Amino acid sequence: MQGFRKVCLFAAVFVFGVALATTAAQAADPLPSWNDGPAKQSIIAFVEKITRTGSSDFVPIADRIATFDNDGTLWAEQPMYVQLFFVLDRVNALAPQHPEWKEKEPFASLLKGDVKAALAGGEKALLEIAMATHAGMTSDEFEKIVKDWLVTAKHPVTKRPFTEMVYQPMLELLTYLRENGFKTYIVSGGGVEFMRPWTQNVYGIPPEQVIGSSIKTRFEIRDGNPVLVRLPELNFVDDKAGKPVGIHSHIGRRPLAAFGNSDGDLEMLQWTAAGSGPRFCLFVHHTDAEREWAYDRQSPFGRLDKGLDEAAAKGWTVVDMKRDWNKIYP
Amino acid sequence: MQGFRKVCLFAAVFVFGVALATTAAQAADPLPSWNDGPAKQSIIAFVEKITRTGSSDFVPIADRIATFDNDGTLWAEQPMYVQLFFVLDRVNALAPQHPEWKEKEPFASLLKGDVKAALAGGEKALLEIAMATHAGMTSDEFEKIVKDWLVTAKHPVTKRPFTEMVYQPMLELLTYLRENGFKTYIVSGGGVEFMRPWTQNVYGIPPEQVIGSSIKTRFEIRDGNPVLVRLPELNFVDDKAGKPVGIHSHIGRRPLAAFGNSDGDLEMLQWTAAGSGPRFCLFVHHTDAEREWAYDRQSPFGRLDKGLDEAAAKGWTVVDMKRDWNKIYP
Repeated sequence: MQGFRKVCLFAAVFVFGVALATTAAQAADPLPSWNDGPAKQSIIAFVEKITRTGSSDFVPIADRIATFDNDGTLWAEQPMYVQLFFVLDRVNALAPQHPEWKEKEPFASLLKGDVKAALAGGEKALLEIAMATHAGMTSDEFEKIVKDWLVTAKHPVTKRPFTEMVYQPMLELLTYLRENGFKTYIVSGGGVEFMRPWTQNVYGIPPEQVIGSSIKTRFEIRDGNPVLVRLPELNFVDDKAGKPVGIHSHIGRRPLAAFGNSDGDLEMLQWTAAGSGPRFCLFVHHTDAEREWAYDRQSPFGRLDKGLDEAAAKGWTVVDMKRDWNKIYP
Repeated sequence: MQGFRKVCLFAAVFVFGVALATTAAQAADPLPSWNDGPAKQSIIAFVEKITRTGSSDFVPIADRIATFDNDGTLWAEQPMYVQLFFVLDRVNALAPQHPEWKEKEPFASLLKGDVKAALAGGEKALLEIAMATHAGMTSDEFEKIVKDWLVTAKHPVTKRPFTEMVYQPMLELLTYLRENGFKTYIVSGGGVEFMRPWTQNVYGIPPEQVIGSSIKTRFEIRDGNPVLVRLPELNFVDDKAGKPVGIHSHIGRRPLAAFGNSDGDLEMLQWTAAGSGPRFCLFVHHTDAEREWAYDRQSPFGRLDKGLDEAAAKGWTVVDMKRDWNKIYP
């Protein structure tokens, strides 16, 4: 019996030690840039609920899919989408090869730096600009163009590299979800090949977990070397009702949690919320004119209007950036 | 010093123990259904090479992407693709709602069980059949149709469920690669939503790692409930030159290893082989008329003609099913 007792004592001490260590780990705040309040509490309550073994709300790791919009949800989108700054720089870089652009809209306006006038041409103008700057090269060449641009490009207001204009609280949220078994995806209206070159380094999200808008590509053998050529033809627009379509086509299962900031994300949140069992939907509301920007129902970029109403009606979490985040950028 | 020596002795015994355990694990054959020979050796040599830490051929886990064709590579495709049996059964099930099919090709031939005559109408006929049987319902409804069908459907020759007509050596290969840090994908000409309902259970491949052909879907709110409606319009054909396009669009990086069995996989293997550093390409050659089927250059399903020549020219691995596999089905 003496030997057995020793073993029991040892086991008890060991179990007690593990319990202490676990408590210490749980006590460390996984979301330090989030102020204590309903938004932070709702996130933690949801994660604790669906990871509690034996609970009826428990969700197996394979089904822990979280989808994030990018522009305005993970990084800044004002005074305009980052990809538009890229487009502007590309048009300037390519202008010497296109002397006709000086006389031709929407390029003439862009070359004068007047994005607003260029975009006055609506969807047709935008598409023309997108194709002129995003098509005609191989996928490898385009990846290099994006990577090179990101090294030198700076935000016009903050003068910081765009990849530093990401939201620290959202980086913590991505990490927190992954530590709890979630697979984190980007589901963005932005170009998929504009994001993939840097999402691993910046967000910890690998290219295969990035869903976005795309143009068509064609497989070709050039000088014995297989390449994918980027064609001036739209393939898929991953925005609004396109987001659930993109999610289904790419992931093949419904997200457990979805995060957005604009009406462009509303259908993604609706699709997520309509799944069986517990689901989590969150809008980031840009309310901080001092540290970031304040905009919602009237903004040309990242308009949040219907989404605000539906979030209120359905009890989704709405982050008040000014109130809920004690830090914006890393 | 005495204490230090004890620690060292303990450490040495521990390390030795771990080393012994490791050796034992390595000694267990990861591919027992593969006969010893050049095919098996080439697989193991490749995996050992790219997983050896410190070697110049070492590949980080994130880049260990392996893509597998499905029909004829992971499961049988004779006397015709499994999805065609599904189509045939669906046409019969739907016929009462379509009295006009009795007089209308390609349906009239299908209802008589004459697939060959039905497919004589070429791509147009095939598309018409595909849309009649795959579109018009929601994505959830289609998933249920596929799952229900698989429970009862049997292969006409072996009388086994189709999900048991998978190749045991390939199941072992999938497991072996995953144990060595690979992410395994299916890249098939078959319908993506025809495969996703069962690939996790049968191959251990989750829906988000299945790439295939698809029709368009549309997000709709029906009676307040968001659904994805399957439209009678082709979205993407994931075959031949479409395979590298599908891989790039879905994964965003080039496979490290690719596995196929027909000319439909050739471009996927070319795209894979053209990457920098070590790459691995393999064709399954159906040479076993007794235990499975023997076919290659002339087969209407799974023709392997150009691929055989290119594999020989480039030194890719070609599995001789009869010689290399001691077991076909589980």
